[in-house]
Amino acid sequence: MKNQLPTKRETILTGDRATGPLHLGHYVGSLKQRVSLQDKHDQTILVADMQGLTDNANNPSKVSSNILNVVADYLAVGIEPTKTTICLQSQLPALAELTMYYSNLVTIARLERNPTVKSEIKSKGFERSVPAGFLTYPISQAADITAFNATLIPVGDDQLPMLEQTNEIVRKVNSLAGKPVLNECKPLLSQTSRLPSTDGKNKMSKTMGNTINLGACEKELRAAVRSMYTDQNHLRVEDPGQVEGNIVFTYLDTFHPDIEYVRQLKEHYQRGGLGDGVTKKILEECLQELLKPIRERREQYLDDKSQLIDILRTGSEISRHKTNTTLHSVKDIFGLNPFF
Amino acid sequence: MKNQLPTKRETILTGDRATGPLHLGHYVGSLKQRVSLQDKHDQTILVADMQGLTDNANNPSKVSSNILNVVADYLAVGIEPTKTTICLQSQLPALAELTMYYSNLVTIARLERNPTVKSEIKSKGFERSVPAGFLTYPISQAADITAFNATLIPVGDDQLPMLEQTNEIVRKVNSLAGKPVLNECKPLLSQTSRLPSTDGKNKMSKTMGNTINLGACEKELRAAVRSMYTDQNHLRVEDPGQVEGNIVFTYLDTFHPDIEYVRQLKEHYQRGGLGDGVTKKILEECLQELLKPIRERREQYLDDKSQLIDILRTGSEISRHKTNTTLHSVKDIFGLNPFF
Repeated sequence: MKNQLPTKRETILTGDRATGPLHLGHYVGSLKQRVSLQDKHDQTILVADMQGLTDNANNPSKVSSNILNVVADYLAVGIEPTKTTICLQSQLPALAELTMYYSNLVTIARLERNPTVKSEIKSKGFERSVPAGFLTYPISQAADITAFNATLIPVGDDQLPMLEQTNEIVRKVNSLAGKPVLNECKPLLSQTSRLPSTDGKNKMSKTMGNTINLGACEKELRAAVRSMYTDQNHLRVEDPGQVEGNIVFTYLDTFHPDIEYVRQLKEHYQRGGLGDGVTKKILEECLQELLKPIRERREQYLDDKSQLIDILRTGSEISRHKTNTTLHSVKDIFGLNPFF
Repeated sequence: MKNQLPTKRETILTGDRATGPLHLGHYVGSLKQRVSLQDKHDQTILVADMQGLTDNANNPSKVSSNILNVVADYLAVGIEPTKTTICLQSQLPALAELTMYYSNLVTIARLERNPTVKSEIKSKGFERSVPAGFLTYPISQAADITAFNATLIPVGDDQLPMLEQTNEIVRKVNSLAGKPVLNECKPLLSQTSRLPSTDGKNKMSKTMGNTINLGACEKELRAAVRSMYTDQNHLRVEDPGQVEGNIVFTYLDTFHPDIEYVRQLKEHYQRGGLGDGVTKKILEECLQELLKPIRERREQYLDDKSQLIDILRTGSEISRHKTNTTLHSVKDIFGLNPFF
């Protein structure tokens, strides 16, 4: 299932819910890939503020206060607005309108069968009190993807049911039209496995305090690495230690540039004589080096919010045009254009 | 529960799903009232094409082909575009956007408890295959009502749960805002009881062929009255007949201008000696007189579709402005305006 980077110029849509600053999990899971994709593809990044509200409507500032942070994160890791269009979901009315039209083509039963939504409803403890906007967000995602005519969607494999739902809607719309109007999309599966949280147990989450944000300061980064889960049976330095499930080694594998050096460290740790203090120090140095320039650029961008707003405004203007074109084609199918 | 016509200038939103031409049931149930309301109130009529699609997505021409018919029906009965704003739902993106925001404030369980939707789902035979857009249409109606800041909604009492749902959303939005941003709305209950179908049994429906459309030609009207349900035990002219449940008399009560004359007819029918052929002839004459000028004006309007389109376009432009203002206030609550 692991794909190669695509070679022909594809239209890529990706994005993030603006519910918190981005962290190292986003960096290895998607941001690095976006930086390398932007040269050869039509890439749009959607800051999904409306989707962020589907489970945060009672605490909307969690979304609004993070919009510019997320844009600063993008720019800090090397996403360039001249190559990648960065836009804000709530600025694109066509997305809401397409969601309304598509909602008539998807049954509630079908939405309730979506395994991704099912497990999210469970993990968020919604049970029967799931907001309508949350159960139906796969329809809204289908609107996002098709509105941009995106053909390639970078996802983790837990998101594949979302693309299936999108392609079902695409086929229904095309069948109503009697001709291909919308494109089906393909997944671009991440080539890296999901980065574990620093506590090694739970899913990464800001509230659990088990993530390392891209904007973490030196002190926060140090504290996060020091508290990392290692091998709980490795009590004395001279004892043999285990590297499997040892988060420090997982992060070293992911972030340390010298693979051979990490291999030697692992051997040393496994035969005994290498303390967790030392491995953590090595990891911390490597992460401090990675995050320093990102943090600095991030702060510069956040110091001049008007520049960030300009980037969002320009990207949203371009995207408004694209998404309105798709909306027009879909309204054509429903016979709603001749009057205007 | 029967209200008097309101005296102070209220903002009224009313409308029809554009799924067929309007009929005598609409005429007595809502159109006549709209004509009398338009002089003293801010009245908007929404041609609900998007709502019409919630259960007709597989047959969209049922909606698109009826939009101008419905507008012609309005004008033919005396609704004046200079006094009443007539607009098209699909031309107002703010309605879809508001629907998205409100969807996060309403649970699926709450929607499933809505008695109106429940009975519609049953009568349409949807069961578990109810489209998401159909289950959630009360949210879309709340968006329509609040977008226009409407305070008074003409409804039948079967629609009261819709207004309850709207006011629940209004209260949630205002509580999030910490101040009154949206207005609660009140029902304006119809002062006439629901007109029965010509077969006296089923709900009025085009597919059942038991309605009399405002545009019915002389011949169609004659045939409809001749086939009307009367008293099935009234076999011979000289027998006493029953007026209760006799659709011809229900229609005479509703449409005949001379109440005393209808009273005498009823007495005659009840003591025997008055045949159904005669009562039907009297009703037919009265309906022919009512519908002739409506039909003629309707045909004139449909002969010049560009005028109808202009009326819809102008009304939609005015409405776009109003509904965008509400959307802006709601996005303010969610903190989504500062960037644009």
